[in-house]
Amino acid sequence: MFLDKLNWRYATKKMDPSKPVPEDKIARIVEAARMAPTSSGLQPFHIFVIRNKELREKLKEAAYGQSQLTDGSHLLVFAAYDNYDDARIDAVCDQHASERPGAEEALGTYYDRLKSMYLPRDARTNADHAARQAYIALGFALAAAAELEVDSTPMEGFEPEKFDEILGLKDKGLKTVVILPLGTRDTEGDWLAPMKKVRKPAYEIVTDLD
Amino acid sequence: MFLDKLNWRYATKKMDPSKPVPEDKIARIVEAARMAPTSSGLQPFHIFVIRNKELREKLKEAAYGQSQLTDGSHLLVFAAYDNYDDARIDAVCDQHASERPGAEEALGTYYDRLKSMYLPRDARTNADHAARQAYIALGFALAAAAELEVDSTPMEGFEPEKFDEILGLKDKGLKTVVILPLGTRDTEGDWLAPMKKVRKPAYEIVTDLD
Repeated sequence: MFLDKLNWRYATKKMDPSKPVPEDKIARIVEAARMAPTSSGLQPFHIFVIRNKELREKLKEAAYGQSQLTDGSHLLVFAAYDNYDDARIDAVCDQHASERPGAEEALGTYYDRLKSMYLPRDARTNADHAARQAYIALGFALAAAAELEVDSTPMEGFEPEKFDEILGLKDKGLKTVVILPLGTRDTEGDWLAPMKKVRKPAYEIVTDLD
Repeated sequence: MFLDKLNWRYATKKMDPSKPVPEDKIARIVEAARMAPTSSGLQPFHIFVIRNKELREKLKEAAYGQSQLTDGSHLLVFAAYDNYDDARIDAVCDQHASERPGAEEALGTYYDRLKSMYLPRDARTNADHAARQAYIALGFALAAAAELEVDSTPMEGFEPEKFDEILGLKDKGLKTVVILPLGTRDTEGDWLAPMKKVRKPAYEIVTDLD
């Protein structure tokens, strides 16, 4: 059944602006993204849930005019850390320590070791690492949307610097890495809707080593 | 219910080797990963499903001895493209053209444009892009495992070069990016099992822009 839902979903090209996604479903999709596991529990990203139409119009201009940004009812923007630093890692360590009493010492050792590995790395390596974690959360959001029969279109085709500027992310040490309009498919108007889903066959993409 | 399952899952630290995961569940988890959406449908990765115990013993040595690699019954290895090239993009274009009759010309134009963007980029940029797509598939595999109540432990803590060597990936233009042991939690033996799941609160990681 879960697989049927994953088959039902597709990168919706045309959404129907008269059919907004109910807020309770949005809340569950965002909650799924928040629950996604990340490397050492760092959750090194921020999720913007954008309903504001004017703001979405502005972002659409920075996304080559793709209609889903405004025909959908909500836009999720995944913005990952541009780097790791002491404060960001300390915050995670502190939260774990406060929610897992008795583990303080082990946590301190663990996150000190993490700092000694991550902080000397260049910003690009760390930003890339953070972006990958955001993509796990994107996967969870996509799966949750499918489960709830909410249409979605994951997009990398936008101008990230413009997004960062419009959303004021640079001062926050964040970079937009991927976006996800949510809405309802306009089956009549979507050229992709009647097309067969195409995936590489299992024998090409999966190898069993028994 | 889906959210309950995502809450049920955790990065299992101790698996019970006497409780292997049934093959039909493994098949569904891998199928979910294969269904994951990827940038321009490229699916730029390969998934190894490793049952062979000797091979998992060897890989465990390259993963700091983490017990889940052999206490679990299956190990998924996600290996992403080390770069894009003409042949890899042509193969995707050709498959889409053959499964979507009538769209050949538009697909040709689309993938030619993609080549003009991706092929001049350095290998690191492309490998990083490919790795992110693999992380969406990882997200789908994690969500499917949770849905089926299969335990899993996503891991970046291993020596990727050694994995690539053991699995012979270099000649195939692949790089190990993340691994996922699958098995059954040993609740008694797992120090993490009784601990509270820790996630940043929504007000810290999510911003609504209404």
